[in-house]
Amino acid sequence: MELETLLQQLEDLQKKMYAYGTASSSLYLDAVTTAPSDTSEGRGIAMSILAGEEHKLFASKETDELLKALEARKAELNPVAARQVTMLRRSYDQLSRIPAQEYMEYVALTNEAGDVWHKAKEASDFAMFEPVLEKLVAFNRKFAGYYDSTKAPYDALLNEYERGMDMEKLDAFFGMLRSRLTPLIKEIGAAKQIDDSFLYAHYPVEKQRIFSDYLMQVMGLDRAHSTIAQTEHPFTLEFNSKDVRITTHYYEDNLASSMYSVIHEGGHALYGLGVDPAFDYTCLQDGTSMGIHESQSRFYENMIGRSLPFIRAVFPKMQELFPEQLKAVTAEDFYRAVNKAQPSLIRTEADELTYSLHVMVRYEIEKQLIGGTLAVHDVPKVWNELYQEYLGVQVPDDKNGCLQDSHWSGGSFGYFPSYALGSAYAAQMLRNMEKDADIWSDVEKGDLHSVTNWLREHVHRFGQLLEAGEIVERACGGFDPSVYVDYLEKKYRALYHL
Amino acid sequence: MELETLLQQLEDLQKKMYAYGTASSSLYLDAVTTAPSDTSEGRGIAMSILAGEEHKLFASKETDELLKALEARKAELNPVAARQVTMLRRSYDQLSRIPAQEYMEYVALTNEAGDVWHKAKEASDFAMFEPVLEKLVAFNRKFAGYYDSTKAPYDALLNEYERGMDMEKLDAFFGMLRSRLTPLIKEIGAAKQIDDSFLYAHYPVEKQRIFSDYLMQVMGLDRAHSTIAQTEHPFTLEFNSKDVRITTHYYEDNLASSMYSVIHEGGHALYGLGVDPAFDYTCLQDGTSMGIHESQSRFYENMIGRSLPFIRAVFPKMQELFPEQLKAVTAEDFYRAVNKAQPSLIRTEADELTYSLHVMVRYEIEKQLIGGTLAVHDVPKVWNELYQEYLGVQVPDDKNGCLQDSHWSGGSFGYFPSYALGSAYAAQMLRNMEKDADIWSDVEKGDLHSVTNWLREHVHRFGQLLEAGEIVERACGGFDPSVYVDYLEKKYRALYHL
Repeated sequence: MELETLLQQLEDLQKKMYAYGTASSSLYLDAVTTAPSDTSEGRGIAMSILAGEEHKLFASKETDELLKALEARKAELNPVAARQVTMLRRSYDQLSRIPAQEYMEYVALTNEAGDVWHKAKEASDFAMFEPVLEKLVAFNRKFAGYYDSTKAPYDALLNEYERGMDMEKLDAFFGMLRSRLTPLIKEIGAAKQIDDSFLYAHYPVEKQRIFSDYLMQVMGLDRAHSTIAQTEHPFTLEFNSKDVRITTHYYEDNLASSMYSVIHEGGHALYGLGVDPAFDYTCLQDGTSMGIHESQSRFYENMIGRSLPFIRAVFPKMQELFPEQLKAVTAEDFYRAVNKAQPSLIRTEADELTYSLHVMVRYEIEKQLIGGTLAVHDVPKVWNELYQEYLGVQVPDDKNGCLQDSHWSGGSFGYFPSYALGSAYAAQMLRNMEKDADIWSDVEKGDLHSVTNWLREHVHRFGQLLEAGEIVERACGGFDPSVYVDYLEKKYRALYHL
Repeated sequence: MELETLLQQLEDLQKKMYAYGTASSSLYLDAVTTAPSDTSEGRGIAMSILAGEEHKLFASKETDELLKALEARKAELNPVAARQVTMLRRSYDQLSRIPAQEYMEYVALTNEAGDVWHKAKEASDFAMFEPVLEKLVAFNRKFAGYYDSTKAPYDALLNEYERGMDMEKLDAFFGMLRSRLTPLIKEIGAAKQIDDSFLYAHYPVEKQRIFSDYLMQVMGLDRAHSTIAQTEHPFTLEFNSKDVRITTHYYEDNLASSMYSVIHEGGHALYGLGVDPAFDYTCLQDGTSMGIHESQSRFYENMIGRSLPFIRAVFPKMQELFPEQLKAVTAEDFYRAVNKAQPSLIRTEADELTYSLHVMVRYEIEKQLIGGTLAVHDVPKVWNELYQEYLGVQVPDDKNGCLQDSHWSGGSFGYFPSYALGSAYAAQMLRNMEKDADIWSDVEKGDLHSVTNWLREHVHRFGQLLEAGEIVERACGGFDPSVYVDYLEKKYRALYHL
């Protein structure tokens, strides 16, 4: 067959998968933003049929044959098509190794598990979730073998979220975090604590909405290609490089919560909007890994959003919107308040310093669960022990403990480390960016162009053309977590006058 | 093959079509409610691929074989399955008669035509739309032959929107409307006109939104299964009998516009929510025809919403929300104002009395266009002449004339009569309903249960199980447009003291 014909078929296949993905995303977005409350049945039927059709389309003999034909002529392919073939082959092989029956059972299980987890969390009763978690762990141990039978099961799963990452690297990474951050956290515990009480005054949602719009504008999130909505949990949805949505959740008694959700999700959104439009409607159009995605969200949230120059830039707008609440507050006070470090129970509410320790608890548990050295039944016990050990806090119940996150109910094991990796990458990117451009004088003026342009150049535009490791090489100069710890130490020693 | 297996395949096929329909609807809803402004490219690609996949699935040899196998055993089928087979066969035969190439060209043409129409309307320049309309008319003349070559082309198209309807019946219908309504409209023109100026005071959107919520509550539109959103043009979207959405458009200087949009769309929504849930995810889950659908929306909008008892019921809430604007107004004043009859240019803003004459203009033009006796080029001329003749108004430009409606740009020829038919059916339903129940004492209390229950019993629950004609038989006792004209005469003679 003509190469041109094969390439056309390659494009068509990817466009179809994009179409199915877009349909599912749209139904999901509707579900969590505007759908009437009692309408999940009909949507569930549609979504599972569409997923089935997509699966049938992709996991077909035709796909295999197309990929084989292109692989045979790999030398003639341009790098973009070559990369597409590589990625599709990887997905194809994985999917085709999972027996169809197992795959269907697993999809049904994760659908059910979300509900079960939700109810168990409400009842704060791990025992309710335990049988489902047993099954989820068993499936993932099996799937790990399908993904890569040459690796330890947890390494195979980690590799799905961050290609090239494994327990050896993560043990070293978390080991360093633990050994250097734990003493610092203790020191801070003994130091004079920062007053952040004004963050918890009454902040009307209406005004917070205006503030969100303002933050999007500062971040350069063009409203012709992005929107913001309100959902229970903030998230970002990327349809393509010209259509990205973010969501936030407003609390009337907490200004910082939505503010940093918007900046965090805005970071994901800028990544999505920055991908080369030539990759739209192909398998290269998304961010390359969870770790790199989190590096972008956490870069904007922490390195920029929780920096003094940025707060100086946006503080006048805050005082305009909340004159009473911030009457006696300076930009410096605000900066200190949103950087207050204090060990706590809930990951999503943790400060920048203690955040990685929350992730580490989940990493240790996943490693043992998938490794087969921890029984599901013992998860709460180990969870509570690790929170005591790493963060020095007592977990009062499952709701504020091992049931707080939804990830496991969705079958995600190996995802959590991405959060910590993203923060570490972000710190390295910041150091390199500072070498290339005088970003802080721009940021202080509320101008993020030099920041975003640097990230676009080194990270965004590649989409999935490059692997996570190649991005880390290009943007960070290789993975070196000591940069992250140095960054945290410097920032927090100054904040607490240590 | 076992009958059970065939029936399972029948169910699966319909569920898949439901899934594709749901995906398209969700993407459409997103587009007109929340999507960023400049994102149509990616959505368009996804939608056209999904439409192509659905077409491939349905217009396949497998579908034909399944239907043949079921047709061979029709005697063994229950009435629901038998009706499904009949309906799917009809759609299949139609689709399979259209050559695939023509079908694709037509889909592309209607996609393009929407944009062209939009721009032509903005520029108020029919010449811009003319070449596209030429092609649309030509396609529809050809399609009419595919639909039913034994009928005149326009009859074949009419039959698509209202099975059993044809030019002979419509000529008689519109002839009666014209001969009896035109003199009445003239008499009203000479009578003392109603003051409706207070409807055009300043009505803040925030308050109008609260009023919409209240109206949905009065109509019994359960928020677990329905929502309201804001769009350029109001519409109703039915996902299934448990999930229906309506939209409205707010004008700050017009209270009645959104009020009657909500009640009109609410009527469509109640129809969708009232279909037997056993028909969900099958080809029977929607309303049975455009005429019957409009009978429901226009029943609630006019027969109920523009009745004095209903206005008495909701007026206290209006006065609570708009105390200043309605200070000097009584429920009776309001009733008279929203029933003010005055020939005008725009169909969607027409009053209940003159509305059908707007439809008649379109009917006459479509009849001649599809019949081949009117050149597309002459549409504006004939349009303007007919408006002068039927309504006595002078059309100043194409924007307020033949470019005002989007229907033709979507390829809909034969749809317009449904609006007038719906009104006529609604009047007959009202007369029969009044015989069965004392609805007005309930309506005056703001209780629409007896109204909705009657419609549910006689119309809603059947979905597409019955043809439009059967519903008309059951709910109206056969089609008799004199009931509609009697209703209008009685109402408007009283209103204008004639």
